[in-house]
Formats: sequence, C-alpha cells, structure tokens
Amino acid sequence: VTKMSGGTSRLEVERISGDRVERLQDVVIKERPATVIFNDIELATLMCTPKDLDRLAVGFLFAEGLVTGKKEIKKVVVDDADGVVWVYTKNAQKPPADSVARRFITTGCGKGLTFVDASQRGGDLRLRSDASIPVSAIHALMKEFLSRSRLHKITGGAHSAALCNSKEILVFNEDIGRHSAIDKVVGECILKGMRMKDRFLVTSGRISSEILIKAARSRVPVIISKSAPTDLAVRLAGDFGITLVGFARGQRMNVYSNGRRILTKARITRKTQG
Amino acid sequence: VTKMSGGTSRLEVERISGDRVERLQDVVIKERPATVIFNDIELATLMCTPKDLDRLAVGFLFAEGLVTGKKEIKKVVVDDADGVVWVYTKNAQKPPADSVARRFITTGCGKGLTFVDASQRGGDLRLRSDASIPVSAIHALMKEFLSRSRLHKITGGAHSAALCNSKEILVFNEDIGRHSAIDKVVGECILKGMRMKDRFLVTSGRISSEILIKAARSRVPVIISKSAPTDLAVRLAGDFGITLVGFARGQRMNVYSNGRRILTKARITRKTQG
Repeated sequence: VTKMSGGTSRLEVERISGDRVERLQDVVIKERPATVIFNDIELATLMCTPKDLDRLAVGFLFAEGLVTGKKEIKKVVVDDADGVVWVYTKNAQKPPADSVARRFITTGCGKGLTFVDASQRGGDLRLRSDASIPVSAIHALMKEFLSRSRLHKITGGAHSAALCNSKEILVFNEDIGRHSAIDKVVGECILKGMRMKDRFLVTSGRISSEILIKAARSRVPVIISKSAPTDLAVRLAGDFGITLVGFARGQRMNVYSNGRRILTKARITRKTQG
Repeated sequence: VTKMSGGTSRLEVERISGDRVERLQDVVIKERPATVIFNDIELATLMCTPKDLDRLAVGFLFAEGLVTGKKEIKKVVVDDADGVVWVYTKNAQKPPADSVARRFITTGCGKGLTFVDASQRGGDLRLRSDASIPVSAIHALMKEFLSRSRLHKITGGAHSAALCNSKEILVFNEDIGRHSAIDKVVGECILKGMRMKDRFLVTSGRISSEILIKAARSRVPVIISKSAPTDLAVRLAGDFGITLVGFARGQRMNVYSNGRRILTKARITRKTQG
C-alpha cells in the first residue's frame, strides 16, 4: 500500500491476462475500523470505508434504536485519524447492557434488530403509506444511482445507497459494506433533519432481513435493490407493509411485496379512471 | 412464501419489463437464524442459509479459535427445525466471557478476530508454504467453481466457497453470506479431518480483512476471489505471507500479494532452468 486518498488506496498489483503478466498501480477500496462511543460507552467497532464517520455512527445508532432524531443529538465528535466517533444525546442515556451481546451476526453485519425483535415489533414498525412511484421513475433513479457509484466504479468493491423522492436522489453514499452504506445515508438524513417517510431507499446490495429492518425503522415505504432479496426479507416486508423491489436493472425489476405502490401505466390509468 | 426446498423458497412475484407486468413463481434464497451453542453456552446467532448447520457451526467456532481440529470435537447435535447447533468439545472449555462482546461488526459478519487481534497475532499466523498453483489451474478451477454455484444461479443471492488442490474442488458450499459459505467449507474439512494446509481457498465474495483472517486461520497459502479485495486485506495478506488473488474472471486475475505462488509460464520456465 503506497498511497491513499478519499476511500481508496493505491497499490501495486500483478495483472495476469492469459499468460501475460503486467505490473501496474491499482486502486482498491479502503477498509478501517470505526469505533462508535455512545454517551461515553463504547458500543461497537465497525469495519468500514473511513469517510463520513459522523453519518455512519448516527445512522448505526438509529438502526440500533438508540437515536431517533436530530433534536436529541447533543454533539458528534469525530477523530478521523484514529477512527473513533463520540455521539452524545441530550438525555445522556446509557445503552442497554445487553445491546452488544444480543446483536445478531448476520450475512451483513450483525447490526440492527434481531429476527425475534423484528417479529415482536412488527406491530410498531407496520407502515401505512400512500406514497407511490412510477416504474419509469425507478428506471431513471437506478440509472442515476449507478452513475454516481464512483467508489464502486474504480474499485469494484463498494456498495451504494441513496434516499430518493420520485424525481431525484436526495442523499447518496458508498461504503465497503451494504449495511454501512445505508447507515451513512440514514445518518445524513438525521443530522440534516431530513424526512425519510414517504421517500424511497435504493441500495446496490442484497436485501437480507437486517436491511429490510433498517428500511422499516427509517419509515421508507419502498426499498429498491439492484440485487436479490432473501425469503425472510420478503416475509418481513409483507409484515411491515413495505414495498420490496429487487433486481432493478435496465428496464426490468421484480416486485416482491406490496406492489400497489409501483405505478405501471395500467395502474395509473386505473387510478385516473377510478 | 408458498413452498420451500433445499436452501430456497418459492414465492409469487410481479416481474415488470418496461411497462409489462407478469405474475409468476420465483425462487429466492432462504435466510434463517442459526444459534451456535458451545459446551452449553449460547455463543452467537448467525443469519444463514439453513443447510449444513453442523459444518457452519464448526467452521464458525474454528474461525473464533474455539475449535482447532476434529480430534477435540466430542459431539455435534443439530436441530434443523429450530436452527440450533450444539457443539461439545472433549475439554469442555467455556468460551471467554468477552468473546461475543469483543466481536467486530464488519462489512460481512462481525465474526473472527478483531483487526487488533490480527495485528498482534500476525506472528502466529505467519505462513511459510512452498505450495504453488499454475495460472491455467486457477482458470479451470474458477470455471468449475462457477458452474457448481447452483443456489446463486437460481436465486442470484448466494455466495460460494471451496477448498481446492491444483487439480480439483475438494469441498464446496454456498450460503447467503460470504463468511458463512467459507465457514461451511472449513467446517466440513474439520469434521472430515481433511488437511487445509497447502491447499487453496476460492470464494465468490469480496475479500475484506475478516475473510483474509479466516484464510490465515485455516493455513491455506492462497485465497482466490472472483471479486475485489480491500486495502486492509491486502496488507494483512502481506503480513501473513498469504497469496491474495482477486477478480479471477475468465482468463484474467489480479495478484495483490506473494505472487511467487502463482505460476505463469515465465515463472515455470525460470524454475525449470534454475
């Protein structure tokens, strides 16, 4: 590793094509630990792309249920050099003693609610939103989303996430982890006091149960992914009243739950006639 | 979710192409919690594809340093219906009290050694292996590897992992998580008493620090991925003396560290002449 800049590192690599070997400088994605300290209690260390650590920490704490909005945040202090973020809330609450030990280890990060929690809290998280989005808007947003994924384009190793309305991308971020990319987006919304309700979450990554629970927590009614969902995520999306769209690529997509929010021409015509 | 079988679930989906909507049966990957109980202490719950849970648990415990080989395992009991695995070792040791709390939350799973641990134990894990593999063998193994990735082919949502020699795939598995796919492979090797030293690990997933540490623990001298590495994984591969190959696709690959084990025609000729 010879040199670094904004989320990437330059290093020397042997590129082999057939039997031809070429030595060249390549760019790979940066991975560093970031420790989140909540009201002076060390809560977790996340392996992440070391950028926007304030957003990452706040989004992570939101997903953990320890922060619910901008108003309650007193101070966020970031030490970029050592990868430490201190978040202080006005009520100065301590995290529950079991919040780390109880955390799931999952396909993605071991963050967020447990499956059991999710089922139990299905009621609380149940969403009744009339928001909808035309199919053509999803096509346009995905195109814009992919074109903005700079880190992924140059390293092949990043995930992207965004909060959108039906017209444009409002918040965008990237990280080595699909969970952390979403945490950074949600964290930015909270730090800026932006509404997430009735807006749409877009992700490059697969939608496992934890990603779905993150969406449910942030109250977005629709989550759209370039990739596959799991069966458990589809079930939870049904329970929570969330619209789950997978494999959104080019002119195609699969709608796995609550399809009424995805407006095809036929549905728009029907609405207008009704 | 209407019907399930071997790692997948069937469900109804709306497939939208342009403005055409088609209702059809689709197959998605299954995700369930699996709880690992080690000598009667509940250690962790992993979100995984519920297949080969005995292998997953043993591989996970190996990565955690709690199991080091077949001989010390007394009994493995699997309850597939409830997703619980009990692993008993002959010495009946209890896991360290902080083993769960200390666990990293990472891009992939929060499993394995921490980064700090890894640096400290770099000495222990340092590998001096004369094993090597021709470029042409990597091409052939990757082709075979991709063709065996059944779950990924039908769901688009699985990761694969394999242990190989330079001729063939010896152990293969799939899981929703890239960490768990490797744990299942390593677990099978341990349960069958198979040697991992001087053999090669192949993965479909990105190589983050934790994946690299899993490879180091299992003593494989070469890890080959279809995907990207992180800068930290490249640095650790250098420290541990592991050969890290990324973007192994078709006739191409990038070698990020310890390239001497990857035999191009030029290197083979040089060896023969020397």
